[in-house]
Amino acid sequence: MRDPAHATGTTLTIDLDAVVANYRLLSATAPGAECAGVVKANGYGLGAAPVVRALAAAGCRTFFVAHLGEALAIRGIVPDATIAVLNGAAPGAEGEFAAHGLLPVLNSLEAVAAWTAEGERAGAPLPAILHVDTGMSRLGLSDDELDRVAADPSLLDGVALKWLMSHLAVAEAPEHPLNAEQRARFGAVRARLPVMPASLANSSGIFLGPDYHYDLVRPGASLYGVNPRPGAANAVQHVVRLEAPILQLRSIGSPRTVGYGATHGVTGATKIATIPVGYADGYLRSLSNRGHAFLGRHKIPVVGRVSMDLVTLDVTAVPEAEARPGAMVEVISERNTVDAVGAAAGSMGYEILTGLGARYARRYVGASA
Amino acid sequence: MRDPAHATGTTLTIDLDAVVANYRLLSATAPGAECAGVVKANGYGLGAAPVVRALAAAGCRTFFVAHLGEALAIRGIVPDATIAVLNGAAPGAEGEFAAHGLLPVLNSLEAVAAWTAEGERAGAPLPAILHVDTGMSRLGLSDDELDRVAADPSLLDGVALKWLMSHLAVAEAPEHPLNAEQRARFGAVRARLPVMPASLANSSGIFLGPDYHYDLVRPGASLYGVNPRPGAANAVQHVVRLEAPILQLRSIGSPRTVGYGATHGVTGATKIATIPVGYADGYLRSLSNRGHAFLGRHKIPVVGRVSMDLVTLDVTAVPEAEARPGAMVEVISERNTVDAVGAAAGSMGYEILTGLGARYARRYVGASA
Repeated sequence: MRDPAHATGTTLTIDLDAVVANYRLLSATAPGAECAGVVKANGYGLGAAPVVRALAAAGCRTFFVAHLGEALAIRGIVPDATIAVLNGAAPGAEGEFAAHGLLPVLNSLEAVAAWTAEGERAGAPLPAILHVDTGMSRLGLSDDELDRVAADPSLLDGVALKWLMSHLAVAEAPEHPLNAEQRARFGAVRARLPVMPASLANSSGIFLGPDYHYDLVRPGASLYGVNPRPGAANAVQHVVRLEAPILQLRSIGSPRTVGYGATHGVTGATKIATIPVGYADGYLRSLSNRGHAFLGRHKIPVVGRVSMDLVTLDVTAVPEAEARPGAMVEVISERNTVDAVGAAAGSMGYEILTGLGARYARRYVGASA
Repeated sequence: MRDPAHATGTTLTIDLDAVVANYRLLSATAPGAECAGVVKANGYGLGAAPVVRALAAAGCRTFFVAHLGEALAIRGIVPDATIAVLNGAAPGAEGEFAAHGLLPVLNSLEAVAAWTAEGERAGAPLPAILHVDTGMSRLGLSDDELDRVAADPSLLDGVALKWLMSHLAVAEAPEHPLNAEQRARFGAVRARLPVMPASLANSSGIFLGPDYHYDLVRPGASLYGVNPRPGAANAVQHVVRLEAPILQLRSIGSPRTVGYGATHGVTGATKIATIPVGYADGYLRSLSNRGHAFLGRHKIPVVGRVSMDLVTLDVTAVPEAEARPGAMVEVISERNTVDAVGAAAGSMGYEILTGLGARYARRYVGASA
């Protein structure tokens, strides 16, 4: 009898040595800067705890998450590391940040004031990161707020700013003029504020060159195998592998349709393989009639709609000895990367990673596991 | 200080009384049949345990899941209920099914043989459901297998078949000819097999009329608020409500772009609200520049790309007193149903439900909670 967790036979293998190799490559690409690890969204879907353990063992000492809950989940694993929370502290949660030694990313002057008050309670200014918006129009200090700070620099006296940061919007497109614009705006902001270390680059930003590295780089997606330079050869290693067994093999002789909505028609002799992976597992429904997988050396297309718990694949061209119940289908692998699956879905690798489902048996491999 | 789980302020409210009301309505729509509850995929994303508790208290005594692991997760909650596993027993897992009194859905003659062997070990045939394919081309006995059974009915002697089932492919489109075809095929199959109770209808199938009800109906999505008759008024109650606070409000005066890829340009005076919901929370990235939400009585569009952890909304038209940090944005509600959000994403309500993220604070309400 198998382990119940493995009873579906669907296995998500996560290569922590590849994560570490990617961390080292990204560090080496920005040799003058410290290299943080962005582990929000449960380590981009791979599992924050094992990823943080592996990165910490490789020397990473600064981690970024989005929410307080994500920071608390890893604090025990890296008690001495810097953990920064990108969405900042919700009003009223500052005490918990201080109690656990977490760095809020201060996205507004209201957040600066609240963290100043927390520092007063603690008896000394507490460390934080100041975030300025240079082109995302999402979080971070606005131009108006910067004017206020420039006019009265004492507004920042009550917080111990460890870094000034901003966020690139189009770093994966090096030729886009917004990159240089954002860098110029960031430079102008720095000139108006007290001197402090700075951070601008995400994964793709690291490959924009040393001008973008400053003191701290913050790769996320590329740690997990996403190509930081779309269109160029992928410099980072693939990390995840998703394999699912054929539950059932169906030979169709007479005209039939496949799946919900009868979107795929079959006329001639056809073989359909069904695997226990569906959109409830994060295999996006937009992969219906568009995705593909591999069975041995054969590329096999998704036919019909992706169901909640099942996907149907056309294996007509695969010899009978290979297309049989129990045979393992490669859903995501080095031959069918998260980037490729994301593109087929009309999305990108990031969404494939963060969607990786809770029903897969997860297997961590590598010396770092 | 708030509960850390609530620190993001994003709350998913699940109305279990609405689930129960929907169960009662669906039962009443098929008065001659038993009404099961389909709770696979963690109760369509709502949480299998609370949903099963509420349905059981309302009289539901048969539950369907997809995987063994999902069955084991609810067995302790409903020790005496029938729990059927749609994907069947993986080879080697039959003993665990028997030990926990689970009904495998037998999708092939190989599965019938394996369950027969398990019954021999147990000393008597064990209960199961026999699944025949009538038009999904996914799981279930094929025409060839049915021929073999018709030629030798003793093939089924070793299993105690509780129901014969099949699955409708286009029940949400009542005028589609495949519905009548599948019903005719199902009738022909029944005529060739030993007499036993039958089950064909999913949520939408219930509304195809009494001819489709047989002995057991199997609603899933409509229990959770998905309209079983797209295009007609929704007969079932809305169940989920997702609210997120405005993290930051940004006034933009000069031309800027919003979000990754700079896909949304702003020229005139604009106000952007950012909320802590992203595609890592199941708010599909395909909602970029297409979704909307509500702030008070104001409909506010998603502008720019959905990020991993954040969504940006245009609140220019909302008065300043309402569009302020901390104000709650209705992301999913009765005014913006899972069906509507699914349609905006180019998908459907099912995928919105099953994607509902792990980072939301979940609140179960209603007397059934």
